[in-house]
Amino acid sequence: MMISRVAKSHGLIRLLKKPCDGCLRSPLFLRFPADGFSTFRSYSLTRSRFMSTDPMVGEEARNGGVTMLPAVEDKYGGVMTEMTRPMDPSAFSALLRSSLSNWTLQGKKGVWIKLPRQLIGLAETAVKEGFWFHHAEKNYLMLVYWIPKQDHTLPSNASHRVGIAAFVLNHKKEVIVVQEKTGRFKGQGIWKFPTGVVNEGEYIHDGSVREVKEETGVDTEFVQVLAFRQTHKAFFEKSDLFFVCMMKPLSLEINAQESEIEAAQWMPWEEYNKQPFVQNHELLRYMTDICSAKTNGDYEGFTPLPVSAPDLQGNLYFNNRDLSSRQ
Amino acid sequence: MMISRVAKSHGLIRLLKKPCDGCLRSPLFLRFPADGFSTFRSYSLTRSRFMSTDPMVGEEARNGGVTMLPAVEDKYGGVMTEMTRPMDPSAFSALLRSSLSNWTLQGKKGVWIKLPRQLIGLAETAVKEGFWFHHAEKNYLMLVYWIPKQDHTLPSNASHRVGIAAFVLNHKKEVIVVQEKTGRFKGQGIWKFPTGVVNEGEYIHDGSVREVKEETGVDTEFVQVLAFRQTHKAFFEKSDLFFVCMMKPLSLEINAQESEIEAAQWMPWEEYNKQPFVQNHELLRYMTDICSAKTNGDYEGFTPLPVSAPDLQGNLYFNNRDLSSRQ
Repeated sequence: MMISRVAKSHGLIRLLKKPCDGCLRSPLFLRFPADGFSTFRSYSLTRSRFMSTDPMVGEEARNGGVTMLPAVEDKYGGVMTEMTRPMDPSAFSALLRSSLSNWTLQGKKGVWIKLPRQLIGLAETAVKEGFWFHHAEKNYLMLVYWIPKQDHTLPSNASHRVGIAAFVLNHKKEVIVVQEKTGRFKGQGIWKFPTGVVNEGEYIHDGSVREVKEETGVDTEFVQVLAFRQTHKAFFEKSDLFFVCMMKPLSLEINAQESEIEAAQWMPWEEYNKQPFVQNHELLRYMTDICSAKTNGDYEGFTPLPVSAPDLQGNLYFNNRDLSSRQ
Repeated sequence: MMISRVAKSHGLIRLLKKPCDGCLRSPLFLRFPADGFSTFRSYSLTRSRFMSTDPMVGEEARNGGVTMLPAVEDKYGGVMTEMTRPMDPSAFSALLRSSLSNWTLQGKKGVWIKLPRQLIGLAETAVKEGFWFHHAEKNYLMLVYWIPKQDHTLPSNASHRVGIAAFVLNHKKEVIVVQEKTGRFKGQGIWKFPTGVVNEGEYIHDGSVREVKEETGVDTEFVQVLAFRQTHKAFFEKSDLFFVCMMKPLSLEINAQESEIEAAQWMPWEEYNKQPFVQNHELLRYMTDICSAKTNGDYEGFTPLPVSAPDLQGNLYFNNRDLSSRQ
């Protein structure tokens, strides 16, 4: 349907003669992981002459000489256009149809439109052309369209939030605990591990060190992931992965974060364990059993190791004791 | 600024006399996890008389008697409104201002607006009132606004995609391998583990079983997570968690999935290991070392255990051998 619709507009708007494919500039724009285990297609984008950050685009648009939306290409035969300037919806509609017509003729597949919040008024036009939403962040909405007749092979949206709890034990077998100013345990006198959310682009071990520092002022070194928990509907339909992390303190003085933390202290591990809040909670009992086992040297979790591949950098978390012992 | 703006409109529009708080109907609408380790506030929503699925809302709207947007409340003093019918943007603007004015007077905090794709034309109005984007799925955009002057305490958006690779070994020390029809390894003769994406709302162990069944037709039982890898910029700015899962085959006959899989077979484990594609890839060498160690009984990963709490159900993945051996 889309193809026939854009074909109709084909004759009305002058099409760009030189396809985007022929005018690459920079070999890498975004980097996506791809390795033997991954289903996620690598997405090294190449810049086209119509790249939105190119100052020429604005000039050409003002001169009325542009009949295509500015776009960068991806490795999978798709294109992405990022809108940066206000535009009359009818002008956007004409440009979008012209561009779709040309991309269809070029055999392009996925078409991405990144709309900054201030230009959200253009979204309706894209939806009318058959675009749907892929994801959104605070300041933009990403729309997507699939030209081929076959089922799309676009990447899924992010499905999980990642959190950590930090088990920080000092040489006196005391653990760092906090009382939070907000949340469901506020004002109940419950002492809990420092917890937090791992940001996108942040490693679990870096996020753990950051959260302990922010909430308590204590410097730590990441030791290992002792366990993780998966739950669903963490917010709306999204799921949650929550990692219990063993940390080694590098400093002892506590300075509780004013904005979020009511109180923070070192507490004897046995005292933490005795809290009814811990004893009456199946999950917490498992967690504390695991932490106790780790404290006694009876338990091995997953240790991170930086690994790289030509197209990828990451951290592999695994049972290093078991793997090392056999080598 | 928002407060002064809505205060201005206060006198112009008749405000609802009975606040939402007084008219709860159903105790639970959405369930959010909350436990001692989690920072994620529980979000049991209560339905108000203005719940969008209430047929009365439509009637009242048609009669012009509604001065508030339909909304459900959340436990954190916020409200969510889901738009379901087309509305003139100026009428929406008036309703939104009236509602914000009232919610401000009621001391509400977060305000969520769920806009279905077909009503995206209303987003511009909300953005003009100070709303930003929280997340989006294929068919809706979720906008949010924070009334208090203090920093917001709204939940973060999902930051990670979750994937799996399935290590399925039979009694002859053969492993299931596939060649994919799409992706970067297409047509290169490379045999790899079945891989896939874990959906939101799906456990890692369920997703692994599903993916192996879909791609190869083989029934499996989940054994454990052997390792996981974290990488960034999996797509756009999102990160990726990728779990290597040991699976036990429950059937042997292979039926390759027509849409995605070019070929699938049982391959001797040593033969898989010898592929240059595996040997030249640092990450894959670690992965295969771990799988070999597991095959020889020298390695323990994390086993899932269903755990529950009054407000939460989930799975805890941990080193069950180490924990069991000390009890």
